[in-house]
Amino acid sequence: MSKLVIVGTVAFDAIETPFGKTDKILGGAATYIGLSASNFDVDGAIVSVVGGDFPQEYIDMLSSKKMDVEGLEIVTDGKTFFWSGKYHNDMNTRDTLITELNVLETFNPVVPQAYKDAEVVMLGNLHPMVQMGVINQMNDPKLVVLDTMNFWMDIALDDLKKVIAKVDVITINDEEARQLSGEYSLVNASKKIMEMGPQYVVIKKGEHGALIFHKDEMFYAPALPLAEVFDPTGAGDTFAGGFTGYLAKSGDYSFENMKRAIVYGSCLASFCVEKFGTERMQDLNDTEVRERLEQFKSLTQYDIELS
Amino acid sequence: MSKLVIVGTVAFDAIETPFGKTDKILGGAATYIGLSASNFDVDGAIVSVVGGDFPQEYIDMLSSKKMDVEGLEIVTDGKTFFWSGKYHNDMNTRDTLITELNVLETFNPVVPQAYKDAEVVMLGNLHPMVQMGVINQMNDPKLVVLDTMNFWMDIALDDLKKVIAKVDVITINDEEARQLSGEYSLVNASKKIMEMGPQYVVIKKGEHGALIFHKDEMFYAPALPLAEVFDPTGAGDTFAGGFTGYLAKSGDYSFENMKRAIVYGSCLASFCVEKFGTERMQDLNDTEVRERLEQFKSLTQYDIELS
Repeated sequence: MSKLVIVGTVAFDAIETPFGKTDKILGGAATYIGLSASNFDVDGAIVSVVGGDFPQEYIDMLSSKKMDVEGLEIVTDGKTFFWSGKYHNDMNTRDTLITELNVLETFNPVVPQAYKDAEVVMLGNLHPMVQMGVINQMNDPKLVVLDTMNFWMDIALDDLKKVIAKVDVITINDEEARQLSGEYSLVNASKKIMEMGPQYVVIKKGEHGALIFHKDEMFYAPALPLAEVFDPTGAGDTFAGGFTGYLAKSGDYSFENMKRAIVYGSCLASFCVEKFGTERMQDLNDTEVRERLEQFKSLTQYDIELS
Repeated sequence: MSKLVIVGTVAFDAIETPFGKTDKILGGAATYIGLSASNFDVDGAIVSVVGGDFPQEYIDMLSSKKMDVEGLEIVTDGKTFFWSGKYHNDMNTRDTLITELNVLETFNPVVPQAYKDAEVVMLGNLHPMVQMGVINQMNDPKLVVLDTMNFWMDIALDDLKKVIAKVDVITINDEEARQLSGEYSLVNASKKIMEMGPQYVVIKKGEHGALIFHKDEMFYAPALPLAEVFDPTGAGDTFAGGFTGYLAKSGDYSFENMKRAIVYGSCLASFCVEKFGTERMQDLNDTEVRERLEQFKSLTQYDIELS
């Protein structure tokens, strides 16, 4: 089993969907990634920052999932990053109501000494220069995975391109892939993005699943069609946590194994949206994951013999 | 091998896409369905109507694909149905510019005597009462597949519901499934539609692929991501032709076999969009289809062993 370094936000979220609304609850990219990766009993470390207002019980919960929290800086006189958003009726689009960066504004990530030799690094959505700061602290990782979003393309494209040039895998959504590449077709978009550095491009299409491109190959895993999506917050990060968690556990970074990792990512993301915030991911067990993987197999697998 | 009856329009289309525009070219649901089904050497018959302006060479071309045209009525003093449309830049939406029903206005379909015992009936998009007229002429088909669209939900919902109650499979797109059922989630939409009659609900999601629902089971085949979509016209009908053509050829109407049929339908549809109109489908060969099926397998298949 390989070590996994996870960098990203640990946050308070206040979420409104057609099904209800929450007060400030636990959120953040690194939180979702860590919770998802913990399903593989991986040796993970969360590198992030919170304020003095962040409850110890949340930190204990992450520790209990075998996530090292030495790299989770606590700024005792600061406030935790806060995001509030409201989803539209189709659940595919949302408005950001509040973004309070707070302690994130001066965040300088420090990778714990014991995790500088990690094989896998998952760079969750953050300013590209913060992500670069983590890359620079690593000894010689086998696989660096970058998640980012259109916000950084809008305000820090040059910095973002420098990070993109350094990573093995990039995960972005379809619209972001189009924005980054200037190409509408995802096939052409992924080709252009591969020319920027990454050998693997993962394109997240929400309810329509996820694609991974590598050289001239591609693989498509659907999202599980669900009767009800309760709260999409964190689904993309949960996907990324499943993807990197599975790869770190297996230590196999081939394209064939990435296909499996994509399926695990999609499978875990399908749980995330069933309840508000991190609730579903906190109490997920192995039997449930195995049963859902069976559902994924029956959803996607067929036998056609070609002569 | 079973007989396949195909009812639907045979038409002239004039198409404009970001890549160019055509004069009046061969089009129509039954044309695309027939061309697609012909890849399975199936014993098919096209039931439709054209005017005296319809070129004999098009009829000969359909005959050469082993499509019986006895049920293709020629109204010598009438004009062939004409549709003209313009696609938006994203290729997912289009405006209808012209619809001239012409001979379609008084179309009364007649199934040739030799095909009344067909096992498979594909009801392409037409007025529900015309579709019903075909069902009533059949002896005892094993599988009746219905394609329809929002237009009939808007203006002839009661008639449409009567046909839906009589068929085994319905194929519609995602927005139409939502309109017909009043449910946003496709899982819930398909449940409601199954309660209306069909045991199988196929939901076409265009570039996002297709889903089939049956009881509590579901299966998802992606569309092949393409570098360029030249003209989406007929892709849904080509999908339906591949689906029913494969089922008619195999004579196996189980859910497991329908999964394969969905994959064949998606595979054939991926060719249709590569050129304007029916051009690509007219000169498609077996080797090309087999190679693309291999692409579909590598796109979708993975091995995860669950203990």
